[in-house]
Amino acid sequence: MSSTSTSTRPKVVITRNLGPETMPLLLNRDDIDVVLWPEDSYCDRKWLLENIRGAAGLLVMLSDRVDTELLDAAGPSLKVLSTMSVGYEHVPLPELVKRNVRLGYTPDVLTDAVADIAIMLALMASRNAEEVTQLVRKGEWYKQPWSPFLFCGPQLSASTIHPERTAGFIGFGRIAQATLRRLVPFGINTCLYSGNPSTPADPAADAALAAQLGVRTLRRVPLAELAAQSDVVFVLAPGGPATQHIVDAPFLRAMKPTAVLVNAARGTLVDTDALVTALRENWIWGAGLDVLEGEPVIHADHPLVKEPRCTVLPHIGSASIETRQAMAKMAAENLLGGVLDQAMSAEVVGTK
Amino acid sequence: MSSTSTSTRPKVVITRNLGPETMPLLLNRDDIDVVLWPEDSYCDRKWLLENIRGAAGLLVMLSDRVDTELLDAAGPSLKVLSTMSVGYEHVPLPELVKRNVRLGYTPDVLTDAVADIAIMLALMASRNAEEVTQLVRKGEWYKQPWSPFLFCGPQLSASTIHPERTAGFIGFGRIAQATLRRLVPFGINTCLYSGNPSTPADPAADAALAAQLGVRTLRRVPLAELAAQSDVVFVLAPGGPATQHIVDAPFLRAMKPTAVLVNAARGTLVDTDALVTALRENWIWGAGLDVLEGEPVIHADHPLVKEPRCTVLPHIGSASIETRQAMAKMAAENLLGGVLDQAMSAEVVGTK
Repeated sequence: MSSTSTSTRPKVVITRNLGPETMPLLLNRDDIDVVLWPEDSYCDRKWLLENIRGAAGLLVMLSDRVDTELLDAAGPSLKVLSTMSVGYEHVPLPELVKRNVRLGYTPDVLTDAVADIAIMLALMASRNAEEVTQLVRKGEWYKQPWSPFLFCGPQLSASTIHPERTAGFIGFGRIAQATLRRLVPFGINTCLYSGNPSTPADPAADAALAAQLGVRTLRRVPLAELAAQSDVVFVLAPGGPATQHIVDAPFLRAMKPTAVLVNAARGTLVDTDALVTALRENWIWGAGLDVLEGEPVIHADHPLVKEPRCTVLPHIGSASIETRQAMAKMAAENLLGGVLDQAMSAEVVGTK
Repeated sequence: MSSTSTSTRPKVVITRNLGPETMPLLLNRDDIDVVLWPEDSYCDRKWLLENIRGAAGLLVMLSDRVDTELLDAAGPSLKVLSTMSVGYEHVPLPELVKRNVRLGYTPDVLTDAVADIAIMLALMASRNAEEVTQLVRKGEWYKQPWSPFLFCGPQLSASTIHPERTAGFIGFGRIAQATLRRLVPFGINTCLYSGNPSTPADPAADAALAAQLGVRTLRRVPLAELAAQSDVVFVLAPGGPATQHIVDAPFLRAMKPTAVLVNAARGTLVDTDALVTALRENWIWGAGLDVLEGEPVIHADHPLVKEPRCTVLPHIGSASIETRQAMAKMAAENLLGGVLDQAMSAEVVGTK
C-alpha cells in the first residue's frame, strides 16, 4: 500500500476504512496499489480529487458525491466505481456509461437486516415502546397504579378477539417479502400490497407465493384499500419522485385507528406533516420510522421525535455488524472485479 | 347491581372495572348481584373487607392481597375466587382448599402477547434500540458522521457471515415455544433449553417438536452449555425460590460477547448486580427486560435504566388490548362458573 508508488500496478482509491475483516482482502494483494483515506470521517473532497488521478478503481460510500469533476480528475484510467450501498442515487449513471466505467453495488445482502428492523418497529409502534421506555427512564413506573388496560396497545399477533390480521406493503420487493415471511408465525394471514403501477398484477404468482409463505390471502390492491384493511402498513418501496408522499393525509385518514405505520425505506415516502396530525388526532395508533424527511438533521423538537406514539431510529436498517461486513466485502470484490476485468458480485446493468 | 340489595341472589365482588367489553357479561345478568369497586385505582382494603361479607364470588387482580383475614370476612358463603392473572402467588392456595373455595385463573390467553414482547426485546437489545432512540431524541443524529459500522449491532437473523443462529430458553413452556415459532423465519436453526430439573429429558419429544417448528436442532442442555452456545437467551421460566438468580455472574460470563439476554418472566430470575457488571464490562452485547427485581419502584438512577445497552419495559408482556380483554372475559366467566356451580374456563387443580 502506498500513495506515492511509481509502480505500474493499477491504483484503487477507497474513501473509508472498511474494517479489519475486509481491508486485508485489498491490502494483502500484490497486483494493486491501495490508497486509503486515513481518517475515520467523511473523505475530504480535496484529498479525493488529488488522489484519484490515474486511478483504475474507486470505492465510495453513499455519503460520497460522485460527479463529472471527480470523474474528470480520475481520467480515462478509471475502469470501475464500487459503492458500498444498495442505492446509487449519489452516482451519475449516464456519465459512467459514457466513460465506460463499470458500477458495482451491494444489493440483497441487507435484506434480512432491514426486515429485522421492520418487525422491531411494528412491535414497538403497536406496544407503545417509545412511551413506556421513556416513562421507565424518568423513574415514573411506580407512579402508574396497575390497571387492567394500563400501557395496552393493539397486539401484532392474531388473538381470539382478532383472529384475522392483515399486513399491507407499499412496495413488495425482497425486503417486504422477507418481512412478510417473519410475520407468518405471528398469525398474519392476509397480505395486501401495492406494486409499481407500470407492472401488471399477476394473481397466479401471488397465489404461488402465498402458498410458499403460508399466508391465506396475498394480493395486489389499490392504495386506498391497503390503507383501510391493514393492521400494520410497511413502507418498503424505493424513494424518488414517483413515490414522494405516497403516504399522505388521505392515506393516513383511511387507516384503522388501531393500525400502525412502519417506514424502513426512505423518508420522502411519508408526508411528515400529515403523519404528525394523524398521530396527534389518533387517526392511527402509532408509527415506527427508520427514516425521516430531512435526516440526519433532526432536532430534539422535531414533532415526530416528540410524539409519544412514534419511534424514530437513525436509519439503522442495514446497520448490523454481519450485514455491513458483507456489504464491505462485496464492495471490495466488485472493486477488484472491475480493476482486474473480471466478473463482479453485483453490477448495475447498463454500464458494461 | 346493588351493594345494599336484600335479594337472595348470590353476591359477587369485583375489585376493578373490567372495561366496557366485559362488565356487561356480569352486570346484565339477573341471577347475581354485582358489587364493583367504583374507582379506577387499587381496591381499598377496608372497602373490600366490608363488602365481601356474605359474597359467593370474588374477582381480584394480581395487585390484590388475598389472605385469611379476607377469607374470614367473606365467610362460608364464598364459593369461588377468580383472579385476572396467570400467576396466583397472591393467593393462599391451601386456605382455599381447606375452605372448599374454587380458584379460577387466566392462563394461555397471554402467550402470544408475551411472545411478541420477547421478540421485540431480542431485536431491540441486538440493534441498540435504547441507545439510538435516545440519541435521536436528544437531537444528536446529525452529529454522528456516517461510517460503515456506526450504530451496528449483531444481527438476530442468520446471515452469510453467521448462517448458524442459536436461541437458548430458560424455561420451555408455552410462551417459550411461541417465541421459538416466531424466530424460525429469522433463520434460528438451533434451540437449546433448560427445563425443570425434576422432569426427565425427552429427546423423542424434542425431535418431534423440532420437526413441527422447522428447527434443525432442539435439545435440553445444562445451563452452562446454554449460556455458552446461544446468540440470544430468553428467560421464560416461573419465578420463586427455585429460579432465583438463575442468571447470575457465572452464567453471564459464559455468554458470548455478541449475545443478548431477554427477560420476559419475573425479575427475580436475573441477578441485577451481575447484569450491570456484564453490560458495563461487555461480557454480553445487550439486554431487554420486561421485568426487574424490585419493580415497580425503579428510579431514574437505577443502574440498568441508565445502561445504554439495556431496554427496560414496565412489565407490559401481557399488556395488549386483545389479551387483557380476553383475560378479563375469562376471569368473569370463571367467576360465574364458580358461583353457579358450573365448569370454569381455567381452574387451578386442587381446589375442587
